[in-house]
Amino acid sequence: MSRLTGVGVSSGRASGPIARVADPLPEPPATPAPTDPTAEAARIRPAADAVAERLFQRAARVEGDAKAVLETTAAMAMDPALIAQAEQQVTTRSLPASRAVFEAANGFADSLRAAGGYMAERARDVQDVRDRIIAELHGVTPPGVPELEGPSVLVARDLAPADTADLDPELVLALVTEEGGPTSHTAILARALGIPAVVAVRGVLDASDAVGAVVDGSSGVVELSDAEVPVQAAERAAAVTWNGVGATADGVEVKVVANVGSASDATAAAEAGAQGVGLFRTEFCYLGADDEPSVETQRAAYREVLTPFAGKPVVVRTLDAGADKPLAFLAMGVEPNPALGVRGLRVAFDRPDVLDRQLEAIAGAAADSGAEVSVMAPMVATAAEAAWFAERVRAAGLPRAGVMIEVPAAALSAREVLGAVDFVSIGTNDLAQYVFAADRMAGALAELNDPWQPALLRLVAQVGDAGRELGKPVGVCGEAASDPLLAGVLAGLGATSLSMGGSAVPVVGAALAEHSMETFRRAAEAALATASPADARDAVRSVLSA
Amino acid sequence: MSRLTGVGVSSGRASGPIARVADPLPEPPATPAPTDPTAEAARIRPAADAVAERLFQRAARVEGDAKAVLETTAAMAMDPALIAQAEQQVTTRSLPASRAVFEAANGFADSLRAAGGYMAERARDVQDVRDRIIAELHGVTPPGVPELEGPSVLVARDLAPADTADLDPELVLALVTEEGGPTSHTAILARALGIPAVVAVRGVLDASDAVGAVVDGSSGVVELSDAEVPVQAAERAAAVTWNGVGATADGVEVKVVANVGSASDATAAAEAGAQGVGLFRTEFCYLGADDEPSVETQRAAYREVLTPFAGKPVVVRTLDAGADKPLAFLAMGVEPNPALGVRGLRVAFDRPDVLDRQLEAIAGAAADSGAEVSVMAPMVATAAEAAWFAERVRAAGLPRAGVMIEVPAAALSAREVLGAVDFVSIGTNDLAQYVFAADRMAGALAELNDPWQPALLRLVAQVGDAGRELGKPVGVCGEAASDPLLAGVLAGLGATSLSMGGSAVPVVGAALAEHSMETFRRAAEAALATASPADARDAVRSVLSA
Repeated sequence: MSRLTGVGVSSGRASGPIARVADPLPEPPATPAPTDPTAEAARIRPAADAVAERLFQRAARVEGDAKAVLETTAAMAMDPALIAQAEQQVTTRSLPASRAVFEAANGFADSLRAAGGYMAERARDVQDVRDRIIAELHGVTPPGVPELEGPSVLVARDLAPADTADLDPELVLALVTEEGGPTSHTAILARALGIPAVVAVRGVLDASDAVGAVVDGSSGVVELSDAEVPVQAAERAAAVTWNGVGATADGVEVKVVANVGSASDATAAAEAGAQGVGLFRTEFCYLGADDEPSVETQRAAYREVLTPFAGKPVVVRTLDAGADKPLAFLAMGVEPNPALGVRGLRVAFDRPDVLDRQLEAIAGAAADSGAEVSVMAPMVATAAEAAWFAERVRAAGLPRAGVMIEVPAAALSAREVLGAVDFVSIGTNDLAQYVFAADRMAGALAELNDPWQPALLRLVAQVGDAGRELGKPVGVCGEAASDPLLAGVLAGLGATSLSMGGSAVPVVGAALAEHSMETFRRAAEAALATASPADARDAVRSVLSA
Repeated sequence: MSRLTGVGVSSGRASGPIARVADPLPEPPATPAPTDPTAEAARIRPAADAVAERLFQRAARVEGDAKAVLETTAAMAMDPALIAQAEQQVTTRSLPASRAVFEAANGFADSLRAAGGYMAERARDVQDVRDRIIAELHGVTPPGVPELEGPSVLVARDLAPADTADLDPELVLALVTEEGGPTSHTAILARALGIPAVVAVRGVLDASDAVGAVVDGSSGVVELSDAEVPVQAAERAAAVTWNGVGATADGVEVKVVANVGSASDATAAAEAGAQGVGLFRTEFCYLGADDEPSVETQRAAYREVLTPFAGKPVVVRTLDAGADKPLAFLAMGVEPNPALGVRGLRVAFDRPDVLDRQLEAIAGAAADSGAEVSVMAPMVATAAEAAWFAERVRAAGLPRAGVMIEVPAAALSAREVLGAVDFVSIGTNDLAQYVFAADRMAGALAELNDPWQPALLRLVAQVGDAGRELGKPVGVCGEAASDPLLAGVLAGLGATSLSMGGSAVPVVGAALAEHSMETFRRAAEAALATASPADARDAVRSVLSA
């Protein structure tokens, strides 16, 4: 029996046999050169088609989010630009087909990563597609989750959405990953399924002799055994007992709302029981377009997202573009540190006309859909910027203006910023990135980007205090809100609504109903007084279990 | 008479005739192609030599910093790589010589800017050299400060070190620039000379009819006149009345120390009266080397910097490398946001051996020189990181370990961080960059990087409070400390030492001696209560002049 420790991201205790998720294939060699490059190049398209077809078949068997994930990945496998580039690498550089796919896909993934932000999150999907096509070309089993033959503890390097989209949740006892962090796909999935999960367990992949595991998702301890371990599942109670009204046990309202970025997201979130939308990302409407979409096009696109939430509150975030999320019509240029550059509302200072047209479209879509629309701006740093934005929102006839708190300066000026607007929403992902000066996408710095870091929670507390003092709403819309243990702490720090990926809504709703606001406040105080994320988790668990 | 407003960065009031600093030359055209490319290419080297010779002549007439700046710029003009690349552009692309110099130099400047940090600050120098060589090729007057024929108000886009290195301070009444910020070369120079300066005066370059100006460096107001304006110089009292002991009027000690990065910096700082060194940047020892310098090489290099401060306190900062300041032997890789990447102490987590060798060399140099050496680490985010560093420093036999506070998280955990070390030093430049999520090098975001931003001052106050509570020293070593008006505010916020470029030492020392600590505390409180840098300046001026 050996004992490893990681970060517990979904609580509960379970044990059973280990099922390993195959690692990506080894890097395909650049030699030997094909004897007939044209014939070799011609192998790529059928392989990609076969991969896409298999993904579409899997997609056909499931519904909702899982379907969307698998279909997106399938479409990526058939991307004509990717295939054309791989074919070209075969014919011009005489590479084997698998190597050509490897290089072409890596080029794509690198560009996505360099673009940062939303785009960078797609890089993992491109690699997934790459490995599936290479496996097809080599005639080997593709990497990913194996067919489970009974209840198992899944052990993986990290899990991609396509790995797990059609996983049978009944057969997964727990998730353990070598990499990943508290806001990784693995963590979110585990919470949605209500199963224990521990991420960032250094060394778990090296323990190749282990056949069974005992996983404690609360303490983050994983015990590995060379002998069989009896199957024991964690209780999966929390996810199913939520009554759909976000509130603490003593009835203090804390709205449980969703982050959405498309009409299908919105439908799924409404089905999951979200009480509204805390973050509607509008970038989807602009991406891929050479020109700015017209007001009418935007209005129609927004209306589709708003309609499932007629009569309910929806917070629309205005365009968050920048050098890390480049848009052709804005001509952003290159910046040495795009995350610290001209992005979010900063773009609007030079191009207020783009903002005004978006506000006009939002106002139209609000009227069309009957949703209770508020509007907020990304990347606001000062009260003066917040006031500038609020004035334009009001000029567009929209009733409520707010701003994201994701720049540390805005949190440090929360009172002044809140004085200039009707509400704020804390974006914990970006806020953590800046507070720790640690790129969200940099794996080596994942520990710093832990939303349980006391320094981050102290800043959230400052915003919460300002909200209480001024009697204005303070939302949280980073992935931190999807952690059911942290959700109560955020409420205790002063968050009046929590917004998250739709799948986490019922779990978080249930977690909030478990304790009184007074208990959550004490839990929050306990977390603030610690010096590390692990201590903060322990302190909160100890308050909540007392 | 027209009236413009900018940011007053050096106080006092002066008036007189305007002398304009010539703007950079227009972009040289890419046509016509030279009839004899070989002959055209051969024109470049003599032009570069002539520029270098003229700069060396100017260097020969001055001493100290000015000499070093002019010699560095001269050496850059003769850079064989730059000249070779320009020659090649003429022969391979049939460009005119001036266009080839333009493109080759811009390529260099772009790489420097992309590298960020220390390297990016050199980009302005490359452009200066570029314009001088192009002027030489065209046979026109080079851009820069004209020969002054009498007392004048200098108006420029911005000033580079080489522009002003040999300026006759007796003839400069005031400085006014269209661009630049409170920590620009212009601002630092003006404070060193004790003359009024206003930067970021939008529109001043367009006022081409104006012949005279009245400059108020306190309010930031510049009045331009089409008619002659009588010459009136500001009092230049402050710079000369400092007694060399850093303290407030009521005798509370606030050490006035220097930022140095080389032996010549150290000599100049000691001559300027610095009471010690608050930030010794050790990167110079590593830059340009393919391999890590040996312990003995490092020890000798550090000794040279420490010797001028024998018996005095010197804070040595350990290596601050990263993707933005790449070192060949560390193989840093490429990061999408190097300023948010693996830099500073983060590099040492993977390569503690490099840190240990540097600490050994520092301990040796401390013994050799007799300086009272403390050591601090850059880019610390948590108390755990601070403790890890302090342990290694003590293991190396060094008596005092501290950390930079430049990551917002470290400021938000100041009490815990200070608990793990002997002192901290606030790096306001990087701290502001992260607090405002605004790249220091991004001109469009300069307003956010103003060290007078109340949100930044609030964070400084949190660190100062922790220092007072624990009775441990809190330094400030960003350029904020070189602003004499802000210096007293920083002291009031709890800074126990201020570290700055050597030339600012006497001015800041004199400014601290003007008021009591109680007055500076009231000034600090007044600044914290404002919502903008301009309001903060006004509030402080009003307290200090009451």
